[in-house]
Amino acid sequence: MKEITVIIRRDKLPATKKVLDEMGYPSLTIQSVDGRGRQKGAMCAEMDYDMPDSFCTAVKLTPTPSEYAVEHTLPKAALYVPKRLLTLVVPDDLVSTIVKGIIKVNKTGRHGDGKIFVSPVENAIRVRTGEQNGEAIA
Amino acid sequence: MKEITVIIRRDKLPATKKVLDEMGYPSLTIQSVDGRGRQKGAMCAEMDYDMPDSFCTAVKLTPTPSEYAVEHTLPKAALYVPKRLLTLVVPDDLVSTIVKGIIKVNKTGRHGDGKIFVSPVENAIRVRTGEQNGEAIA
Amino acid sequence: MKEITVIIRRDKLPATKKVLDEMGYPSLTIQSVDGRGRQKGAMCAEMDYDMPDSFCTAVKLTPTPSEYAVEHTLPKAALYVPKRLLTLVVPDDLVSTIVKGIIKVNKTGRHGDGKIFVSPVENAIRVRTGEQNGEAIA
Repeated sequence: MKEITVIIRRDKLPATKKVLDEMGYPSLTIQSVDGRGRQKGAMCAEMDYDMPDSFCTAVKLTPTPSEYAVEHTLPKAALYVPKRLLTLVVPDDLVSTIVKGIIKVNKTGRHGDGKIFVSPVENAIRVRTGEQNGEAIA
Repeated sequence: MKEITVIIRRDKLPATKKVLDEMGYPSLTIQSVDGRGRQKGAMCAEMDYDMPDSFCTAVKLTPTPSEYAVEHTLPKAALYVPKRLLTLVVPDDLVSTIVKGIIKVNKTGRHGDGKIFVSPVENAIRVRTGEQNGEAIA
Repeated sequence: MKEITVIIRRDKLPATKKVLDEMGYPSLTIQSVDGRGRQKGAMCAEMDYDMPDSFCTAVKLTPTPSEYAVEHTLPKAALYVPKRLLTLVVPDDLVSTIVKGIIKVNKTGRHGDGKIFVSPVENAIRVRTGEQNGEAIA
């Protein structure tokens, strides 16, 4: 089994839920997190609805907005963007298919599209039945 | 060392904390998450206090409530149930005992009892002392 | 690749972000959690701003505050302290350096300084580009 951890834009949550459901893997856990990648929260222009208007105003975007401009106008904390973190535990042979489905609905080509991590899981137990391993996530 | 990740009903948190405390493993982290299993949020009748009354009313439970009924009355998002996610890092030889203790207080036999996942952890460090591995979680 | 999970005091978040940024590892995810270690939420005197004043008053600290006093004055739930949980995925050879940097700004020598866990990650994918493994976190 593998754990797939997915960090995506908030507005992509419904489409991501839908695609996972349609693919037959509806079991998942959702958390609200603040995240930052190499772009350090990226540009306001890139953020779309990920940031409140007050944030965009504060950034005072220059005609050619640059990371520099954001860095020096806002406190560091503001550079972290609210994201949704999804966690799924799936059989090894389904990882590739599920990752592709997630990318399909989350890829916009702009910074902030998110990351996917794959980690080992050694056991899973369904509390209701005591089923373990593959049976617990079937 | 293993990480034990536990997803349980919100109302089972106090009993779960208590059993872990009594077993001598009080160290844990608690998060609020939204979760969904194969039952896709399960029936309102199964949910108990996991759902606000307004949700149950909206579902308009039929005499024989079915997943179908929920699916078609509510927006998808509502089918995710608020859960508590607990994380513990423990020595390998204690995993089985701790899992049994968690199941004991969380098993109701109804859908939504939750899941337990066991994952490898390669190192632990206690920030205050710099202790590592087993010492950091003792 | 390794996942570094860091549980720290809330007020140490800015310094931790700063040190990671200065070290060249700005990519991370931040969550709000409630945590408890062996000290079961530790003493109010240890907690500083991690606890509201109303909590400290409720504890009715004795001249020599003891864990016993806290245990018996407050409901169990109050013994969990709000913490920040940070998650970073980094190349194997950077784990040691990053852990040291995190300890440097978080170690006060008092209970509640937090924990760091290191876990294996098998793959990382940048959604925007499809880059995998080391490239996805570079």
